[in-house]
Parts: sequence; C-alpha cells; structure tokens
Amino acid sequence: MNAEIIGVGSELLLGQISNTDAQYLSRQLSSLGIDVYWHTVVGDNRDRLLRTLRIASDRSDIIITTGGLGPTMDDLSKETVATFLGLDLVLHQPSLERIRNHFSAMGRTMTKNNVKQAMFPKDSIILQNDIGTAPGAVMEANGKSYIVLPGPPSELQHMFDHYAFPYLKRKSGQGIYSRVLRIYGIGESAVEEMVKDLLVNQKNPTLAPLIGVGEVTLRITAKSSSPEEGEALIRPMEQEIEKRLGTAIYGFDEDRMESVVVNLLREKGRTLSVAESCTGGLVSNRITNVPGASDVLLEGCVTYSNQAKIARLGVSPKTLKTYGAVSRQTALEMAEGIRKTSKSDIGIATTGIAGPGGGSPQKPVGLVHIAIADQNGASAKELHLDGDRILIKNGAVMHLLNELRLYLLSLK
Amino acid sequence: MNAEIIGVGSELLLGQISNTDAQYLSRQLSSLGIDVYWHTVVGDNRDRLLRTLRIASDRSDIIITTGGLGPTMDDLSKETVATFLGLDLVLHQPSLERIRNHFSAMGRTMTKNNVKQAMFPKDSIILQNDIGTAPGAVMEANGKSYIVLPGPPSELQHMFDHYAFPYLKRKSGQGIYSRVLRIYGIGESAVEEMVKDLLVNQKNPTLAPLIGVGEVTLRITAKSSSPEEGEALIRPMEQEIEKRLGTAIYGFDEDRMESVVVNLLREKGRTLSVAESCTGGLVSNRITNVPGASDVLLEGCVTYSNQAKIARLGVSPKTLKTYGAVSRQTALEMAEGIRKTSKSDIGIATTGIAGPGGGSPQKPVGLVHIAIADQNGASAKELHLDGDRILIKNGAVMHLLNELRLYLLSLK
Repeated sequence: MNAEIIGVGSELLLGQISNTDAQYLSRQLSSLGIDVYWHTVVGDNRDRLLRTLRIASDRSDIIITTGGLGPTMDDLSKETVATFLGLDLVLHQPSLERIRNHFSAMGRTMTKNNVKQAMFPKDSIILQNDIGTAPGAVMEANGKSYIVLPGPPSELQHMFDHYAFPYLKRKSGQGIYSRVLRIYGIGESAVEEMVKDLLVNQKNPTLAPLIGVGEVTLRITAKSSSPEEGEALIRPMEQEIEKRLGTAIYGFDEDRMESVVVNLLREKGRTLSVAESCTGGLVSNRITNVPGASDVLLEGCVTYSNQAKIARLGVSPKTLKTYGAVSRQTALEMAEGIRKTSKSDIGIATTGIAGPGGGSPQKPVGLVHIAIADQNGASAKELHLDGDRILIKNGAVMHLLNELRLYLLSLK
Repeated sequence: MNAEIIGVGSELLLGQISNTDAQYLSRQLSSLGIDVYWHTVVGDNRDRLLRTLRIASDRSDIIITTGGLGPTMDDLSKETVATFLGLDLVLHQPSLERIRNHFSAMGRTMTKNNVKQAMFPKDSIILQNDIGTAPGAVMEANGKSYIVLPGPPSELQHMFDHYAFPYLKRKSGQGIYSRVLRIYGIGESAVEEMVKDLLVNQKNPTLAPLIGVGEVTLRITAKSSSPEEGEALIRPMEQEIEKRLGTAIYGFDEDRMESVVVNLLREKGRTLSVAESCTGGLVSNRITNVPGASDVLLEGCVTYSNQAKIARLGVSPKTLKTYGAVSRQTALEMAEGIRKTSKSDIGIATTGIAGPGGGSPQKPVGLVHIAIADQNGASAKELHLDGDRILIKNGAVMHLLNELRLYLLSLK
C-alpha cells in the first residue's frame, strides 16, 4: 500500500512556509508500513488541483491533501476532491455544532462563511478537529482512500494521530520499525566509511545515513509484522554500530542532545547552572525545552556586558582587562562563577563572537570559548565555527552540551 | 514562465527532513516573476524520477531538481535527467580539479567515487559549488531548462544565488514585488474581515492572508517591470491597511518581533534586562538572535528556583510564600528586581507553568504572568496559553515582546 501527500496552498509555492505537514505525515505513514512515493504541492487553484488529483489517483492508493479546509473562498480542497469523485456536499450537523461551540468558547460569534466547513459528501468519515474549526474527512472511492486534512500543523497532527491513524492502521497490515542513531563529533563521510559494509548488502534491516544540522544520523529500518520481530531484526545491527562508534552516538530516535544531558544529570544526581555570553540564552532555552528540566537546572545568567560578568559571576576585572571578554580565562571564570554563586554541582559557560560585527584578526567571528566547572576545577575548549549568527550560536551550544554529556558519562 | 521544483531523496519521503530547499527556491523564483505551480518530491528511485520528469516536462518550463548529486550509488538525479534527455555524461575536468582541491583543503584525499560528481552532459552549463563538492548544472532541451542542484541547503542556496539566479534573470523579463505585513494580537478571521474588500476585486496588486505560528501576515504582491513601479503599486494598499490595523501591524517583510523590539530600544535610547522563569532563556535567546542586541540588552537571568529568584532578583520570600512563584506579584517583583540589579532602564519578566507537569486546578498548565518595569513602576498581564511546552514558551515570549513593543511605542 502506498500513499501520496498533496499539500494545497499558494503560500507553499511562494515559499512563505515550508511543507512541514508532509514531513510529519511521512513519518507517521512510514511507521504504519505505508510507503510514501510522492509529495506534491499545488496552489489554491481548482484546475491544477484537479490535474494533481488525477495523477495521484493513477499512481497511489491513499491520497492525502493538507490545507484548504478553512472558511474562505480560497479554501477549496474538500470541494475539489468531491468534484473529482463526483460527490455532492451536504451539511454535517454535528460538525456545525462543534464549530459554533468553538466560537462561543472563545467569546466570539460564528460568522456565516464558517458553515462551509461543516459541508461534506454524504458517506464521508468525518475526522473531528479538537484544536481548530475545520473538520477533515475520509472519502472512499474506486478502492482508494482520499483523506482531507487541515493545514495548520497543530490541527493536522492532532487530527491525524487521533482520527486518521487508527483508520489507516486498520487498512495496513505490516509495519516498518526503525531506530535512529544520533551521532555528534564525526563527519558524515567518516561515519559512512566506518559502517560502509553495513550500508550495502543489507535487505532487512536496511541502514541509511542522513546529515542534519551539526549532526549525522543513521537509520536502521526493518519490515516485520510485529514490534518484537522488528526489534529482533534491528538489535544486532544497532549493537554492531555502537561497538564501532562508541560515545560518538549521543542518542536514539527522538532524543535531542539537551534531553540526553538532562537525563544524565538526573541519573548522576548533579545540578547545573549556566553562564552565557555569545549564546545569549540559547543554552538555557534548549535545556528548559526538556520537560522536568527544573529538577536539574538551578539557574542561568546571560551576561552580555562586562559589568554583568563581574557583578553576577564574579569574573575578575583584571582577567577581562588582560585577556578580554572572549578568552579562555574569562570562560573558565564564568563557569566557576556561576557554579559558586548558584551553588550548583556543575557550571558551564560560553563566551565568543557570534557576529556579524565584533570580529578582529586576532578574534574573528566564530571564535567561541566554552567551559565546564565542577568541585575539582574548570576546563575550557576553543571553537572556530562557521556560518551566520544563528548557526554560530547553535554550533557553540551543541558543542558545549556534547562536552557536558561526555563529562557526565565519565563520572562514576 | 513557470517552474517546478522536484525534490529528490528518500529522506524527504520518510519525513527525516523537511523540504526547505523548495521553500527557498520558491521565494527566489517568485522574486524573479517566475510562477511556481508545483513542487514534487520523489525518492532515490530511477523509474519514479523518470515518471516525475515526464509529468514535469508536460506542464512546466523550468524544471529544477534538488538533491541526489553526491558521490554515492543512491545519488542519481543528474544521471536520470541526462537519460531522460537522451544525453551522455562526460568528464568536466575543471570540476574534478575543484573537487580534488576541496578534499586537499580539508586535509583529505579524494576517493574514487567522487569522480562521478564531475561528470556532465557535454553542453551543460556547470554551476560551481563553492561550499561543497557536487557541482550543479543547467541542461537546455526542447525549449525548457533542466537545472540540477545539490540537496544540502547551504550548498543549494549559495549555488542558486550566485550561479542559477543570474541565468534565470536573463530568461525572465518581469518581476514580482511584494510586501508582507506582520500582525500580532488579532485573529486570522478578524483580520480577513477588516480587509475583506481588498481581498476580492484586486488584480494588481493582489492581497493574500496567511496564518503563521501566533501571528497573521498579509502579503501584497504586484507584477511590474521595475522595482519603482512595483513600489508605487504596493504603497496605496499598504497605507490603507495600516490605517485599518494600526499598531497591530508589528513589522514588515523579514522583520521579526525581536528585531522590531531591538530597533525600538535603540531608537528610544533604552536598555533592557530580562528575568525568566517558565520561558527558560527563550526571551534572551530571541533578543540575542538580533545582530547588535548587545547595544541594548544588558543581561538576562533564568531563575527557575525560588532561591535564584530571591538571590538574583531580590524577590521577597514573603511574596513567594503568599502568592507562589507563578503569580502576578512575583512577576512584578522579578521585572523590578532585574531592572534594579542590572541597572537597566527597563526590566521584563515571565513566570508560569509550561507543562507538561506542574499544573493544578488553580494554576493550570499554560498560565503565565508577564511583567514590564520602568522607573515609574511595573505592570503585569495574565496569559492563558494552549499547546505543549514549546508552544507555551513561544506564546509567552511573543506576548511579552509585543507588550514591550507597545510600551516602547508609547514613549515620547
């Protein structure tokens, strides 16, 4: 069974937004063992959408549209799919009630154009929208399923997971099971070299490398009829890769560097505090994105100015004068300072030049010092990062969190 | 003239990455007055890519593929386009030299499989890759242009801007000019209601609404042969919308809420400091993403624990005991505290429950207090936000930055 995802919306073709809906659905469909062979994006244009539906119907079993379910004239996905299938729209009273309630819960009155959102072909399976107003639907015809979903990602994801996923699970038999290994600190081609023999000559499971922003991932994928069998197929290859790459593998599947670090801090019973200059709050922000981060993170200081470095962290004015704010010495004193003033077990720090301004031949844009302090002292590392301000901030944070991870792993 | 973008890569169909290349190219093509009517994504599969090329050739003038130019067996975009056009590949010596130099610059030796990247149909226009190894190419046939570009976004963007853009500019005559108006604090349907008459009955310029995360945007688009004429077409509609929406328009085009705030702080000659609890550093991070933020941001404190709120900000233990950490009173004292201790003109603060844990019937997940303090005192606002931890953090930050913007606008 294979599926095609049709994104409907001129904003996608104008590049105003990225097609994250297709990404989300692709992952979910893959976990159901449904192959996705095509994504298509088409504008809010009836004729071109009809052409797209014709092509999709020729080559795919499940056709999913995203977007174009709203109340405005531009929203024509559902209407066009119905036209394509030769079906009329009729009012679905329960959906109209839900939409009306949604408006009154927000203290607003439903405007007339919203009625359109409650109109469906007679035999559709209605997919309830618990987040917004536009319901989705499944229409079955000629042995194929046409699923129309709303465009806003939060609505689409909730609706798919709760109402479309169970429908598709019933239709599909076999599953695809996969494990993603997340690697930091080794380049893509070096990783590929290290697992070259596993990349070829493998049928089930298969192995595929993928380069991300500042990390490389390997995905092991097995086809099987049960999760247990899938796991049994995946496990030996996973162990082999772990043997070869060791601690360069920082996490699995949906792990993020920050969630791995928060878990390690909790496991090792250590508390953390953060002093940031050039990363400007990104270290704290990433860590506090992890639910329960408050168990291990005591506090963070964004000390942009020298004055703040002195007052908040106790960095010595002499150090700042002698070596400058962007220096190994300042990074060390920042890490030690935040550790002491916050009474945490570990203090970490960043100081550098994120650009675009502020660089010099001696201290160019991209120079960042990171440091980690504990009860035994502090150590620092000098980084030279490429890219714009945002990339440099992100690169410094990934490096620092990875160093912290390796430090935590080394603790007994 | 119209274009179609074909993303090639199984990682797109598995949902491992989002098709940001199509988004980038769409924006650039739109600025050239080239209509993009379709995006397609297809896997690393020769037969399906051939089918896709056949469909694209039937309906589009310019066919751009992204991805599949690398050295591995899976990389088959260029080979398949050549097959489709009936062209043979020959070695392009200058490209081979560049690739060899690229490797030696990184202190590595070029492996044999990389030679594949320097093979092109004889009459191709080679698009140099200044960032990575795989060059791109333009192949012209049957009055259509086939452009193959690499997948990694940094390589694609640099190559497109420097080598493909000039080629396409020569081919295209007319340009599309647009202005995006960014709106905060009014819902999508209310905005649409306010500009309904401008949405219909307009040919040039046209107006289109777009809902983003926590904001609504309106895009005015004019077709014209010069930037001046485009501007003259856009300006009257823009002024009309400004008259209707007033300060709900927070910015234009690539403006972000944080860049608007940093500019206003600079304009008004005010310095800022930030005290964060539930937003965990995101306020500081967003502000420090703006180049030159160090001119106006003195410092930030992420005070997760009560102890840190007391020690760093001088929040009174009695306030914390009587009203709790998540309260209007605590938010006010945090904003006043960070202002005083950092000696900034303005202090802002957040405290709330980002979830998923930590909620109660009295103080549910999504409750956030935000506050702003200046020399005359402090004011606070209570928010009730929906969504997961990340959405709640983002929602609180957008609200707070918008309040700060309105405050700054009110200053003489």
